[in-house]
Amino acid sequence: MFTPVYLDWNATAPLDPGVREAMIPWLGDRFGNASSRHEYGRQARAAVDEARAQVARAVGAHATEVVFTSGGSEANNLFIKGAAALMRPARIAISAIEHPCVREPARQLRRTGWELAEIGVDAAGRLDAASWRAELEQRPALVSVMLANNETGVIQNVAALAREATAAGAWVHTDAVQALGKIEVDFRKLGVHALTVSAHKIGGPLGAGALIMDKRLELAPLIAGGGQERGLRSGTENVAAIVGFGAACAIALDRRAAEARRIEVLRDRVQAALAASGARIFSADAPRLPNTLFFAAAGIDGETLVARLDRAGFACASGSACSSAHPEPSRTLLAMGVEPAVARSAVRLSLGYGTTDADVERFVVAFATVLSELKKLPAMAA
Amino acid sequence: MFTPVYLDWNATAPLDPGVREAMIPWLGDRFGNASSRHEYGRQARAAVDEARAQVARAVGAHATEVVFTSGGSEANNLFIKGAAALMRPARIAISAIEHPCVREPARQLRRTGWELAEIGVDAAGRLDAASWRAELEQRPALVSVMLANNETGVIQNVAALAREATAAGAWVHTDAVQALGKIEVDFRKLGVHALTVSAHKIGGPLGAGALIMDKRLELAPLIAGGGQERGLRSGTENVAAIVGFGAACAIALDRRAAEARRIEVLRDRVQAALAASGARIFSADAPRLPNTLFFAAAGIDGETLVARLDRAGFACASGSACSSAHPEPSRTLLAMGVEPAVARSAVRLSLGYGTTDADVERFVVAFATVLSELKKLPAMAA
Repeated sequence: MFTPVYLDWNATAPLDPGVREAMIPWLGDRFGNASSRHEYGRQARAAVDEARAQVARAVGAHATEVVFTSGGSEANNLFIKGAAALMRPARIAISAIEHPCVREPARQLRRTGWELAEIGVDAAGRLDAASWRAELEQRPALVSVMLANNETGVIQNVAALAREATAAGAWVHTDAVQALGKIEVDFRKLGVHALTVSAHKIGGPLGAGALIMDKRLELAPLIAGGGQERGLRSGTENVAAIVGFGAACAIALDRRAAEARRIEVLRDRVQAALAASGARIFSADAPRLPNTLFFAAAGIDGETLVARLDRAGFACASGSACSSAHPEPSRTLLAMGVEPAVARSAVRLSLGYGTTDADVERFVVAFATVLSELKKLPAMAA
Repeated sequence: MFTPVYLDWNATAPLDPGVREAMIPWLGDRFGNASSRHEYGRQARAAVDEARAQVARAVGAHATEVVFTSGGSEANNLFIKGAAALMRPARIAISAIEHPCVREPARQLRRTGWELAEIGVDAAGRLDAASWRAELEQRPALVSVMLANNETGVIQNVAALAREATAAGAWVHTDAVQALGKIEVDFRKLGVHALTVSAHKIGGPLGAGALIMDKRLELAPLIAGGGQERGLRSGTENVAAIVGFGAACAIALDRRAAEARRIEVLRDRVQAALAASGARIFSADAPRLPNTLFFAAAGIDGETLVARLDRAGFACASGSACSSAHPEPSRTLLAMGVEPAVARSAVRLSLGYGTTDADVERFVVAFATVLSELKKLPAMAA
């Protein structure tokens, strides 16, 4: 069987074998509804409780601060819509490079009278300090700034931002979906009121995420009903996925320090080769996730490059998977002031614990071949 | 290993072995984000498309009318909140026996100026005809009446109700979560604008459900973001769960006719034994799901009976799992005019394709023993 080299770990990660092992019983004889008051139900409840403790440990929170959701998108929507639903219309501030599942619910709030501010970033993709200070003077009620960007990998100083925003009276949220498992994510040290994580980006299953939240924060549920998750998220608990999320957190926590360094070395090796070929590396000078590499080969369309690499046996992305349905130049790059023509050339490589030295060597060779072929095509000339 | 007899299939069903087989590859080597434009992503997209066709076939709808969600609760919330978000505040009518994941979002609408009407039922649990007609004269903008009740199993004549409500200008939704796999569920014949189904009630996995919807219906997404599911439900598709949902639909469709009759015979055998012991059977005279039996043993607390049966090796429920966190007398029974003291005695048995003749025989014997023991306890006397 032909198995392409997977270099798109920021889109989704393969299920970790240890996670699969933890989940399998819950796809077999152990199947209770965790709210049922019989043996099957009690076993399910115990498994959910254990996973809750594992997720809490991975983010330095208390188990009672974990609200399980179906994933990161739901958790981000829960914070934004859930908090806004219990407030008078006010102002929400987000960075200009948030994932659409932060940006879109924030935009939906405008329908109910909210003001939305999108705070710009500098050329390296870091939140612009002057815009941030000016925004805080507007006293936003809600603030959401991502911990690490899904495309560039740039890490924001969320701890400092949260301190300032809290002092200005805001409830502060961070989307830590891309950060978890790659850098330290500590709810207390970050000092935010709410934080989003997702299982499938760290080797856990699709279908599980969480909003970690300070109990002083009041939220209306997005999904109301049976009252699961302390009334904040109704719906029968997805036990297998939650168990897998817990296991993935435990594994990622164990592995992170050693893996981050190994992966960074591989990433930097690819980066050096790309830079030598004339590619522009985005955000190379900013603090970045160790696994992420966002670049543009001048004059080569990103979609085309991804398609050629796909045929050559390498899975990578032109921008995030989340916007692949409507390919447009990366909003993140446009917010950084990158010219649209260059942004259209952008390709993202993201590595993971399964990425090997050999994968990287093969990629570097294949990339050189593909690039020289594409440069020969007249239509591709800049 | 001690394996209790499972008689709580309306709470959740064990994963069908055929479903597990379909899912396993998606918990292994096949792991792409369905929005990714490479080999892994295309395989995931193809699998989601196939599952969409399977779900559509099971409910007599077109694949383009299927919006995948994380489950039934989300689908019900999506209809109610999603439709209301794009309308001026108006009136929503639901039955008094809806699942909390219909009732609670409908109640949340009141915060934004909506009127909520809860339409009563008769003593057998069928929608009260006079109240229904009176409600339609109030011209509700949204109507939601469940196809089959989770506790009594009573089936409403949704096709007739939908015709009348549509003529009165309403958008009509039905929660068919408990009906799917047990009776025919046909989107066209029912004539509703939207219909909710869930995977885990039919032998599929937790974490997948769908809102089947008429394209004339406009909904704001509950979970906004990357724009998956035609913009109606963002978030990386839970491929394994969706594949399992599709497989479960195909299996349930094949099995339904033969199984419904077999299970009804078993249910009626238990019902006869319970009635002979003096138990009151709820909704025995109404059209009911073939697998569901809701009863009260006079003077015996339902929670206590369930706990004793649990120790004796039988998993059943006092009311629905969804409200087990806060045990109160069943709202369904109270709406039917059952006295609270009797409602507190209620116990639900729900059978499934795995239920055997032997299970039922053993239950009947064990029930008689438990009942006679409980009747000897002075505190339990009526």
